[in-house]
Amino acid sequence: MPHSQVTNLSLIAAIDLGSNSFHMVVAKAQNGEIRILERLGEKVQLAAGIDEERQLSEESIQRGLDCLKRFAQLIIGMPLGAVRIVGTNALREARNRAEFIRRAEEILGHPVEVISGREEARLIYLGVSHTLADTPGKRLVADIGGGSTEFIIGQRFEPLLRESLQMGCVSYTQRYFRDGKITPARYAQAYTAARLEIMSIEYALHRLTWDEAIGSSGTIRAIGLALKAGGQGSGEVNAEGLAWLKRKLFKLGDVEKIDFEGIKPDRRAIFPAGLAILEAIFDALDLQRMDHCEGALREGVLYDLLGRHHHEDVRERTLSSLMERYHVDLEQAARVERKALHAFDQVAEAWELDDGVWRELLGWAAKVHEVGLDIAHYQYHKHGAYLIEHSDLAGFSREDQLMLALLVRGHRRNIPKDRFAEFGDDDEGTKLIRLCVLLRFAILFHHIRGTQEMPQVTLRADGDSLDVVFPKDWLEQNQLTQADFAQEAEWLTRVSIVLNVR
Amino acid sequence: MPHSQVTNLSLIAAIDLGSNSFHMVVAKAQNGEIRILERLGEKVQLAAGIDEERQLSEESIQRGLDCLKRFAQLIIGMPLGAVRIVGTNALREARNRAEFIRRAEEILGHPVEVISGREEARLIYLGVSHTLADTPGKRLVADIGGGSTEFIIGQRFEPLLRESLQMGCVSYTQRYFRDGKITPARYAQAYTAARLEIMSIEYALHRLTWDEAIGSSGTIRAIGLALKAGGQGSGEVNAEGLAWLKRKLFKLGDVEKIDFEGIKPDRRAIFPAGLAILEAIFDALDLQRMDHCEGALREGVLYDLLGRHHHEDVRERTLSSLMERYHVDLEQAARVERKALHAFDQVAEAWELDDGVWRELLGWAAKVHEVGLDIAHYQYHKHGAYLIEHSDLAGFSREDQLMLALLVRGHRRNIPKDRFAEFGDDDEGTKLIRLCVLLRFAILFHHIRGTQEMPQVTLRADGDSLDVVFPKDWLEQNQLTQADFAQEAEWLTRVSIVLNVR
Repeated sequence: MPHSQVTNLSLIAAIDLGSNSFHMVVAKAQNGEIRILERLGEKVQLAAGIDEERQLSEESIQRGLDCLKRFAQLIIGMPLGAVRIVGTNALREARNRAEFIRRAEEILGHPVEVISGREEARLIYLGVSHTLADTPGKRLVADIGGGSTEFIIGQRFEPLLRESLQMGCVSYTQRYFRDGKITPARYAQAYTAARLEIMSIEYALHRLTWDEAIGSSGTIRAIGLALKAGGQGSGEVNAEGLAWLKRKLFKLGDVEKIDFEGIKPDRRAIFPAGLAILEAIFDALDLQRMDHCEGALREGVLYDLLGRHHHEDVRERTLSSLMERYHVDLEQAARVERKALHAFDQVAEAWELDDGVWRELLGWAAKVHEVGLDIAHYQYHKHGAYLIEHSDLAGFSREDQLMLALLVRGHRRNIPKDRFAEFGDDDEGTKLIRLCVLLRFAILFHHIRGTQEMPQVTLRADGDSLDVVFPKDWLEQNQLTQADFAQEAEWLTRVSIVLNVR
Repeated sequence: MPHSQVTNLSLIAAIDLGSNSFHMVVAKAQNGEIRILERLGEKVQLAAGIDEERQLSEESIQRGLDCLKRFAQLIIGMPLGAVRIVGTNALREARNRAEFIRRAEEILGHPVEVISGREEARLIYLGVSHTLADTPGKRLVADIGGGSTEFIIGQRFEPLLRESLQMGCVSYTQRYFRDGKITPARYAQAYTAARLEIMSIEYALHRLTWDEAIGSSGTIRAIGLALKAGGQGSGEVNAEGLAWLKRKLFKLGDVEKIDFEGIKPDRRAIFPAGLAILEAIFDALDLQRMDHCEGALREGVLYDLLGRHHHEDVRERTLSSLMERYHVDLEQAARVERKALHAFDQVAEAWELDDGVWRELLGWAAKVHEVGLDIAHYQYHKHGAYLIEHSDLAGFSREDQLMLALLVRGHRRNIPKDRFAEFGDDDEGTKLIRLCVLLRFAILFHHIRGTQEMPQVTLRADGDSLDVVFPKDWLEQNQLTQADFAQEAEWLTRVSIVLNVR
């Protein structure tokens, strides 16, 4: 289910369903600032429960749900829109994520979103930039997760470049250190694999340059602590320290023997893989030093949530830049949006669309329905859907993007009924089709693109029927619009909606 | 099969496999000018032979092939690259076009290309602009074909806007005038359908504006002649004339009774549909007058052919603008292109790629292999393939585009073997895979993007094996490249190619 909005709130919460750990923060929002009240974290190791068919095992699902039951106590009674729950790489990967999400939503009572790697990177930077002092230089932020590693170069509160690579301390542990033995050969394999991954982005990172390097994940924190315990610095990571720590691991030879002060037992198994990835990052990016920052994904989620409630919704900016990039006719998009929302308001109650989220989605779809025209006119609704489904749209969850793509896909010609039906539970597919019908109405209404003054119309919805009433005699005098709607009525019979236009 | 190039030629020919008629022109090329020696045309009505499952009937295939047998006599012995044969809407539509193309290529001995609607529009404008006097104003050109109608606004030799709509005099005849009866109600249906089609582009056309309107197809020529025969003007079409002709058709009531001077009997059946479409164009675009121009698609094909031999290959310009639009790293693309062509030259003979066309294709693929990065990093090879498959790439046939898209699709990670195998006859799929292997080699070779001086390497191919020899000890000192190629060797085993790198 897509997330709703609440306009006024003071208590907000974020849950981060990571590949290695689940984390929750509860905070009080005041004057655009956030005061953390509660932090919880559990090492669920979801990524370790994914098999070769990319299925989450029932055992690991259960581990995750047990943790969420404990988290749930703290968010009971919080209104929709005050809690945001994001899943990252393990859930991106798992083919049976829908099963996990359904059960998690039942426990938590709030929607669970799976976000893309670049969206994760954006949120991490948002968290880091709100945690560190506001300096003018450029920052490189690296976040080594369980299944993916995010890289961001940003300045002040603005990410300039966001990347996400498929390497993480849990997945690399499974691949190179499964039985816990630490040998130079295995370490070299893990290190080289990481170097090859980073190669695809290092040129872009080097070109932007940065003034300081920040690490924001548990892996970097743990390595900093291990170095400090060994008398190598005071918590930061440096190149010499990494070499020292590597030699030390080789001497120990087994993860069971890792006993650095401050490193919890459940961090031991994934320690060598994390070190290999971090060393590869240092070498590829020519780093000398990296400082650790506590704020990360979950803090970013909180600040993002706060922004949505203070008219700084990053999603609006994302759509604007998408429209600009693909040369959308802005006047037409605005006309269609106004008409679509106007139609929505007339039928929302009758069509049970009045729970807040659908209206927003319809407005977004109206804005971007023509982006595909920039690729080609022929079947441009399909090109638009492709762009929206696959672009990195900052601020949107995967599900938001998929619903938006589907509305664009269905905005003209045939409505792919089955693909709508696949969405969510029970009546969600039906509501999405109704939304699509409203979008199509607004587009047809402005088919003539502002070359003619259009009259006021009245819409009435009832079950599977939609009545559109034009002023008396108007349709008879505007045969093209009449023919347009006659054709539309035929398309809509395929999704069992009866359109009456008079 | 993709078309080859001949550097020096004087006799050239173009065949246009239209939905209504097939046409051929043979011309002499001299100093960048073209002198037509021969014109042939036959009303094959291919579009009329397409059934509801979008299959060309054997009867209509035979009609087409019989015509091509007559055409073939005139192009016997002409070298590859001197004849270009393009298929338009009927072949775009027909699901069994491969069957027709195979048999047509056997008869003609030259490749048959199916071109997109916008590519057709580009070539039509090229033909028209070389036929008319070179005036400074903007021109609107409309070409009503059997299955599609093209609209172009251009200035001098440059098309500014190209559109293609799914309406034509053969398909509309089948839909609205199948039994030959002409009634005001049927005419109104055809007219309204055309108005609705045009609606999707009329705003864009109006916004650009134009100084004169030109019609370039047989339909417009025939209507002009009918008007002239009735004492309405001297061959041009005007709004009053259309109204007069429409009334006249209603009075006749049946296509059999059409007997305007200059209108051949085989044009009668499709005359009412053509008139309805032309009237819709006049009304939608507020036209008062349209002049006819003889030059059209086939002349455009000739001038395009000529351009390719005079270093004005429009395809190079198309790729440059694609690279610019999607922010391709131009230096990297140039490095990869040079390396790919260098590798190609070393193995072309052994891999039987030395017949000219493959080298060109490899160069194009190197230029654009990264376009998908602009959409998202994740699976960007797929996004690139999508953009290339679906964009309107001026100068490229559908098959060119599909091959180019496939090379981009296969440039990293898994090579989709089956999709390569689908291509063309016998060994074409194998050659395409080999080309893809060379592209991948060049990309891996420059994986480090110019941050390191790369050595000279020697390539040797033999059947399914490719040897890459680096200078002695170089690989040992550059472990990342070594690891890169080790990974690549694994990918290539899936397409049964043995990569030896040393």
